[in-house]
Amino acid sequence: MILLASRSPQRRALLGALGVEFRVVAPRADEGEDPLANARAKAREVAERAGVPEGGAVLGADTEVLLEGRVLGKPADAAAARRELEALSGRSHAVRTAICMITRRDQREVVDETRVTFRPLGPAAIDWYVGTGEWRDRAGGYAIQGAGAALVARIEGDYTTVVGLPMGRLAGLLEELGLAPSADGPSPR
Amino acid sequence: MILLASRSPQRRALLGALGVEFRVVAPRADEGEDPLANARAKAREVAERAGVPEGGAVLGADTEVLLEGRVLGKPADAAAARRELEALSGRSHAVRTAICMITRRDQREVVDETRVTFRPLGPAAIDWYVGTGEWRDRAGGYAIQGAGAALVARIEGDYTTVVGLPMGRLAGLLEELGLAPSADGPSPR
Repeated sequence: MILLASRSPQRRALLGALGVEFRVVAPRADEGEDPLANARAKAREVAERAGVPEGGAVLGADTEVLLEGRVLGKPADAAAARRELEALSGRSHAVRTAICMITRRDQREVVDETRVTFRPLGPAAIDWYVGTGEWRDRAGGYAIQGAGAALVARIEGDYTTVVGLPMGRLAGLLEELGLAPSADGPSPR
Repeated sequence: MILLASRSPQRRALLGALGVEFRVVAPRADEGEDPLANARAKAREVAERAGVPEGGAVLGADTEVLLEGRVLGKPADAAAARRELEALSGRSHAVRTAICMITRRDQREVVDETRVTFRPLGPAAIDWYVGTGEWRDRAGGYAIQGAGAALVARIEGDYTTVVGLPMGRLAGLLEELGLAPSADGPSPR
């Protein structure tokens, strides 16, 4: 059993696809600037409050979007979303996701980074995307797993790191900790 | 209005995320080896049978998985799936998706390729993945948009090309043809 210390429906969907038993415990930790510190704070807060399951783990995660070293936050309104998309258009940026996994014996942490290159976006494409409203509550102002896929020319790295949970690295960590899904475990969703 | 000449639920989901009006017309074309020829045959067959919508298009697509130049087909059974996953483990392969778009005036074609690198998979990970049954009806024996995400270390290129419809290239084509979704069009799903 894994406790997912995250409110993100995207992380829930990714972990669900893996076929491990888990439930969500929304973290109450304050978030700062650094994704690894945030992932750790979420995992620790949930581990203290809900306890670490025997033979299981608490998993915290946090994601940031960086354009030339500058952190792009969640746009406050449509005008801010437009500015972020204009800044990303035709260029590469980095998406960094940190995970922290706490078991009763161990604490393991990983930071994974993927480069995302946007295609050049004309005003009509930006108007369209801002009009979808999908930028709301998204660091960088887009969701690669939704209509935002049409903004992206290519990525280099793990796609799921951009969505919010680096599945390749996570699967490796689960194997190291003896928590990997197995042939006789629950089915992936 | 776009007619999607494909049976794939993944392509339907991706096109739905774009927020263009479309409906699926299952193609009856025979499939050969070459993805561009297949995409073209599907689009042409549907265009002839159902007609090309005025101010719209027919869209055909086809995907192949290549390991060192060798095409990996859909595994016939669990043993074949295991052999494909063992061959892909710890190595890079190519996924190539072709699209063909037919309007009343134009025919446009694109082939997009993404490199996918699997993490090294031990016997337990392969047992687990074969047990999910997700390899069924999948070229290469995996689905990157499902539990298969846990097999992948990184990709280089457009993620949606691996899923089956290169959204970045498709969005560019739709803009060139004046068919792109606009701020006052339907909402993406």
